Parts: sequence; C-alpha cells; structure tokens
Amino acid sequence: MSGRRLFLTFEGIDGSGKSTQARLLAETLRAAGHDVVLTREPGGSPGAEEIRRLVLEGDPDRWSAETEILLFTAARRDHLERTIEPALAAGKIVICDRFADSTRMYQGLSRGDLRALVDQLHALMIRREPDLTLLIDMDPDTGLARAKGRQGAEERFEDFGPDLQRRMRKGFLDLAKEFPNRFRVIDGNRDVDSVARDVAEIVHQTLRPLQQT
Amino acid sequence: MSGRRLFLTFEGIDGSGKSTQARLLAETLRAAGHDVVLTREPGGSPGAEEIRRLVLEGDPDRWSAETEILLFTAARRDHLERTIEPALAAGKIVICDRFADSTRMYQGLSRGDLRALVDQLHALMIRREPDLTLLIDMDPDTGLARAKGRQGAEERFEDFGPDLQRRMRKGFLDLAKEFPNRFRVIDGNRDVDSVARDVAEIVHQTLRPLQQT
Repeated sequence: MSGRRLFLTFEGIDGSGKSTQARLLAETLRAAGHDVVLTREPGGSPGAEEIRRLVLEGDPDRWSAETEILLFTAARRDHLERTIEPALAAGKIVICDRFADSTRMYQGLSRGDLRALVDQLHALMIRREPDLTLLIDMDPDTGLARAKGRQGAEERFEDFGPDLQRRMRKGFLDLAKEFPNRFRVIDGNRDVDSVARDVAEIVHQTLRPLQQT
Repeated sequence: MSGRRLFLTFEGIDGSGKSTQARLLAETLRAAGHDVVLTREPGGSPGAEEIRRLVLEGDPDRWSAETEILLFTAARRDHLERTIEPALAAGKIVICDRFADSTRMYQGLSRGDLRALVDQLHALMIRREPDLTLLIDMDPDTGLARAKGRQGAEERFEDFGPDLQRRMRKGFLDLAKEFPNRFRVIDGNRDVDSVARDVAEIVHQTLRPLQQT
C-alpha cells in the first residue's frame, strides 16, 4: 500500500471542521497502511512556522497586504521544499490543512488586484497545486460560532463578523467552480462521522485508479 | 533647500567603505540644509529589521535561495512602504546603504536563473529604482581584509574568500554597465576624504538641475 503519492488539501471557513476532518482522514489512511504526512498552513516546516509567527502576531496593521502576501509565499515555498515535496518524492500521501486557495480567497475578498498578485507569485515561486482539494462547506453563522468558541492568540484571521464569514464561504465556493477538476465540495453541516465518511469515500475513489497503475 | 526629493543608493563589495561614505554624505547634505533620511538594507524599517534577523541569523542553509529572495523582497517592500516612499513624498533625500542591486549581484553570482527571479519579483513587488547609485569600487583583497577586521554575528554574507570577492566586484561593475543612466563608479582605493569629495561632487551635480526647476 506504499508509494501512493497524493497531495490533498482541506479548505473551508473558520469553524468548518476542516482541521478535524484532516486529522480523521490521516488516521483512516494510516490504519489502511498508507504513509501519511499531516501538515498545515501557514507553517508546516520550522522556517515557515517562524514566518507564520512574524505574520500572525502583533499589530494587525504591521504589514501591508502586499508584504503579507510575500511573507506567506516565502512560508509556502519553505513548507513546499522542506515538507511537502520530500514527502511526495518518497511516495507518501500529504494532507495539508489550508494551502494556496486560502491565500487566494482571503486576498481576493479584499481586493481583486491582490488576488492577481497571489496568482502571479504562485506561478513564479510555488507552481505546485493539490491533486485533490476538499472544501468543507459550512453555514457561515455556525462556523463563526464554532470559531469564536476556540479563539486564541492568533485571532487576526478569525476576528470577523457574520457578513465577512458569508463572503468567505462564497469565496471558497467560487474557487471550487474555478478549479472544478481538483475541488470537491462536502456538506459540513452534519455530524463529524458523516462528514468523515464522505471525505474517506472521495479519497478512496481518487486512490483507486492510482493503485491500479 | 527643502523639497529636493532624491533616492540615492550606495553599493559595493564588503569593506568598500560604502557605509562610511553614506554617513558622510548624509552629514554633508544636512549641513547644506537638506532633509536627509539615511537608511540601509536588508532592514531599514521595524518590520524589515525583523525579516533581516530571520534571514541573516542561524544556519546558513536554513533557507533555500528562492525563499531567501522572497524574504528579502518582503523586507524591501516593507522598507519601501514605511521608510523610503513616505520620505520621498515629503520631499526628502533618501540615502540607502545597499538596495535591489545587492540582491541582483549576490543572487546572479550564484545562478543566472536566480537573477531572473530577483528581477521578476522586483518588477512585480518593488518597481522603484534609485535616481542615482554610487558604486564604491574597491580592490577585492583590500576590501576582504577590511571586512574581516570587523566581522560580527551577521557574517553569513562576508564569509567569503578572495576569489568570490573578485567575482562580486566584477558583478557590481557589470551592473553599472547594465544601468549606465543611474550608476556612477567611484574609485574607493583612496583615503576616505578624497572618496567623500567625489561622492559629494556627483550628488551636487545631480541636485543642481533639480534645484533649477
């Protein structure tokens, strides 16, 4: 069962349950004998975690949107080089909680030219796209209530009202339409186990043709 | 004498005396009544200084060349937004000890594709070029001996042998040929005061037509 290299990402609004689902999927795949690396963004490698602290801590206005995009791209490049690419090269399955789509959605929501900038930097410095992106779609008010319940020190990106939460949900659904080949939208407004079963089924469908080769 | 907005940079190999000359020029221009901001790269703004520490401290291999270029570009963007552009907008003279040319030279020296990457990121995120770049040209062996005499904690970029020092000198001279409109090459193999007189003369020549407008 080894050598099933696959790059999976989870996306969704805060409180959508994507981190829980990423963890459950990693457990399911490991139980089935797969070699799995579970990681997250921003961060996911020692250097990227340091950049994450630089971006997420302190005054929200300490960086302009453009500098922030450069720092996120630097963190993603390091994460890709040190964690994701070596794992894929070793034939592992990589599950990443948030990736470039989160940056596209957040920046695109505030200004169209920032979304273009994210895409230009991605084309220049990252290039890698996931094989499969699981969007856990969630009612914005439920998501907001959940996210607020666990708000910690890094609350910059969760310090949002219901209107912004709705726009973020729509932003992710628009991305799913923009990249239909790799996106799968999963209804997250159900109990954890039901969502996890759907996730596992989609991933098994993706792995099956790979295993026949 | 106010309102003479001008963006001046100093470039040169380690130990060329460019930092001393930048400081002396700032003193001379201030004594003549100009409003001067003296700054340096990497760094030059609180955020950029934090990124500088991230890049220059620790294991030299902690970042790939590509991630390092992204971090330098993030620092430069912050420096530009927070220090350089506001000073120029207020009609000040900005003197910067190293700028994009240093990144072009250092990265270009190791790999041609990295120089191309620096240029692409510059075109996307920085765009601003100096009005005048003073290259303090210096015998590589003399420069190396001087740089070694003051080596401190941030020695990553000065931990070079004489061969690399010679290639860096040539790299800067090649840049001067590539951008002849803004580069002036000054012989740094003389006493500090002689070099400072040449620097001041060139800068006065640049300011004179500006002051007539």
